[in-house]
Amino acid sequence: MNQLTQQVLDGHTRAIARAISYVENNHPEKENLIDSLYAHGGNAVVWGLTGPPGSGKSSLLNLILRKERDKGKKIAVVAVDPSSPFSGGAVLGDRLRMQKHAVDPGVFIRSMASRGHLGGVSGAAGDVIKILDAAGFDLIIIETIGVGQTEIDIVEMADIVLLVLVPGLGDEIQALKAGVMEIGDVFIVNKSDRDDAAKVRAEIEYVLHMKTPSELDVPNPVVMTSALENRGIDDLLVQIEQYLAAISQNGLLEQKRKQRIARELKIIISAKVRGRVYRQLKLDERIQNWADAAYNKEVKPYTFINRKLEDLFK
Amino acid sequence: MNQLTQQVLDGHTRAIARAISYVENNHPEKENLIDSLYAHGGNAVVWGLTGPPGSGKSSLLNLILRKERDKGKKIAVVAVDPSSPFSGGAVLGDRLRMQKHAVDPGVFIRSMASRGHLGGVSGAAGDVIKILDAAGFDLIIIETIGVGQTEIDIVEMADIVLLVLVPGLGDEIQALKAGVMEIGDVFIVNKSDRDDAAKVRAEIEYVLHMKTPSELDVPNPVVMTSALENRGIDDLLVQIEQYLAAISQNGLLEQKRKQRIARELKIIISAKVRGRVYRQLKLDERIQNWADAAYNKEVKPYTFINRKLEDLFK
Repeated sequence: MNQLTQQVLDGHTRAIARAISYVENNHPEKENLIDSLYAHGGNAVVWGLTGPPGSGKSSLLNLILRKERDKGKKIAVVAVDPSSPFSGGAVLGDRLRMQKHAVDPGVFIRSMASRGHLGGVSGAAGDVIKILDAAGFDLIIIETIGVGQTEIDIVEMADIVLLVLVPGLGDEIQALKAGVMEIGDVFIVNKSDRDDAAKVRAEIEYVLHMKTPSELDVPNPVVMTSALENRGIDDLLVQIEQYLAAISQNGLLEQKRKQRIARELKIIISAKVRGRVYRQLKLDERIQNWADAAYNKEVKPYTFINRKLEDLFK
Repeated sequence: MNQLTQQVLDGHTRAIARAISYVENNHPEKENLIDSLYAHGGNAVVWGLTGPPGSGKSSLLNLILRKERDKGKKIAVVAVDPSSPFSGGAVLGDRLRMQKHAVDPGVFIRSMASRGHLGGVSGAAGDVIKILDAAGFDLIIIETIGVGQTEIDIVEMADIVLLVLVPGLGDEIQALKAGVMEIGDVFIVNKSDRDDAAKVRAEIEYVLHMKTPSELDVPNPVVMTSALENRGIDDLLVQIEQYLAAISQNGLLEQKRKQRIARELKIIISAKVRGRVYRQLKLDERIQNWADAAYNKEVKPYTFINRKLEDLFK
């Protein structure tokens, strides 16, 4: 076993950070590292935390961290941001607010950009989870900033998805809700001190009611919280534990984890095959000529690509 | 030329809708259809419209549609939603508000789910643009609901990206802004009647000021609007036309379009290669066994996949 692997297993913060950088930079040693850590994982519980911007996810997360730390858990937080090279990475007020946890050695906080990962950010997030799991964290929380398809793919890597909703964000939020409802396990109505919080709860319960139950389904808790007034957090954590206990007992957790692994294997296959074919086609050199030809209508896109791939696979 | 192709070229609404369904369902005739339409495109201008939820994109879009229709343009709107099978698709208040345009034969409106497309939704969106372009629309507007990486990928297919921002949506919006700033060409500060609108404008101008200019760069307009009070729309449309004229003249538009085609060709290659490899590996049958083995720590993910791919490519 090499030194970095050993240091990660020992829980050294700087080694963990370096291992994550291997994943983010697709370092040549990445695959060996992940494979050598892999057998040591499987002990952490992974929570996904998502919801529309402005729903107060970060304030909730702060309160959750405090309570779970009091139970003696080692916790890692991975926050996935749509940060960009142009802006030099998002400087998050949210992250700053978490700094009081940054001096606590039992809490590890890391931001990950959602762009620029070979095999997509969900592939990278899967590897980061494996590192943190092997490093001995009891609880790994994946938080997404932004609400979109990529973010949904990421939180689906979790054992349990906490979906934060709030009253009064208007029509577009309703649309987003419709899009993300299916991925939630525990529904949190935050800012529940607001007038129309009960209405949001009723809407969620209505949609849940319409869901076609599957064999292993466990009732989805809907919890009212106010991060601002520090209310409802204890109830939330009880509901989370009960949900996890139920899906652990009935086999749904195992099924979810196997599905996650299946997705991860597919992501690895896709990324590796794509890389290999791009190299064989010398795509980096040629793509601009091909695009020019298509722009000038000299070739038809599908016919052209099919011919190129025929050459490659024959 | 087959009948559907001819009907799309003639601009028949039902034929266009059917052609788009071919793309969405990955119909066996999809590739022939797109290839036969391809030579007839290249005349439409494509606008991307994005921004955080609650920024008033849809109200703006309504006003834009009215003004551009008055100029006699045929317009198509493609709204990409994070809708889901579970919720039966997002029922959008936004879409409903656009119904007054729905009876106008010069406006074609279509929702597209961001999930479940072979090659991802941006691949599908590229093909839908080709259909609408060949069908003779002068202006195609791609609107995204939701803000995330997938949504950024989609609006990057446009000739010009309109990024809508608003005052006072808090920290998380700041983070999102940081993530999406780089993709905007024209910046819209909507709800400019609010107190801190000038501050948002100043922030945008500050970030734009820090941008490293490239050779073909054109100044990015920042426009103040109030969709609610119907203010600033004329100015916005003038700024858009001027920006498009400038990038058309200096070659940036051609460069963008060639880059878009290059991305599309890569997406097609990735999707086709992935499909072929999945079939050769009989992945659908086997993936669950593989995932079980990985779950039980009988195999290491990368070592295992590398061995499977060796077998395939040798």
